[in-house]
Amino acid sequence: MKECLFCKIASGEIPAKVVYKDEQVIAFEDIKPQAPVHIIIIPRTHIETIADMDTDNSRDLVDIFEVSKRIATDKNILEKGYRLVINCREDGGQEIYHMHIHLLGGRKMAWPPG
Amino acid sequence: MKECLFCKIASGEIPAKVVYKDEQVIAFEDIKPQAPVHIIIIPRTHIETIADMDTDNSRDLVDIFEVSKRIATDKNILEKGYRLVINCREDGGQEIYHMHIHLLGGRKMAWPPG
Repeated sequence: MKECLFCKIASGEIPAKVVYKDEQVIAFEDIKPQAPVHIIIIPRTHIETIADMDTDNSRDLVDIFEVSKRIATDKNILEKGYRLVINCREDGGQEIYHMHIHLLGGRKMAWPPG
Repeated sequence: MKECLFCKIASGEIPAKVVYKDEQVIAFEDIKPQAPVHIIIIPRTHIETIADMDTDNSRDLVDIFEVSKRIATDKNILEKGYRLVINCREDGGQEIYHMHIHLLGGRKMAWPPG
C-alpha cells in the first residue's frame, strides 16, 4: 500500500529501529514506548485490521506469534512475562491501519489494559 | 488439567456465562469486566501460556482469533472496534495459567494498555 506507514517501514523506505525481520514479518521499536520493552510486530502483507484476517492469511498470524516469542527471548523477558495487545479500529485505539501486535514488557503491566 | 479453573469451565464443572463454544474453543464473560464487553476466549486444550504455543498447536491460535471476530460481530462491536489482550506470565499480569485472550470493547480503550 503506497501510503501506509508500516508498509513503508517494511520496505525500508522509512527508517525504524528494526529488531527482527524475515520474509513474512518485521518487528521494530515503538516510537512512543509505554514500557522498557515495546515492540511492534507486523506482517509484511498489508492487512488493515485483525478483523480482516481469515483462513487465507492465518499463516501471518501464526508467524507473528512465533516472532513475539523469539523477541521476548532476545529481550530476556520470556520468563518474567509480557503483554501482547492488538488494537482493532477506533474503539480499540488502532492508529495505523496495517495490522500489528504490540509486545510490552520489562515492567509489571497494570490492569485494566487501557 | 485437574486443578485448572479454565479447564473446569471448559468441561462445565464450574459454571460461567458462556457466549460461544465449539469443539476447540470456549468463550465466556470475564467475572470482573473492565469494559461493557469483556470476554475471555480459551482453547479447550490446556496450554499454560502464549509462550507455550508452537507450530503443533497453532491451529488453536487461529481458531481463537476466528472466534474473537465472531463474538465481536455478535456483540455488535466489529465496526466500532475492540482490543485483544494476552497476558503472559507474571509481568504480563497473567492470573490463570491456561492461555486466554481478553476481548474488550463497547468503550474507547485508553493508552497505555496497562
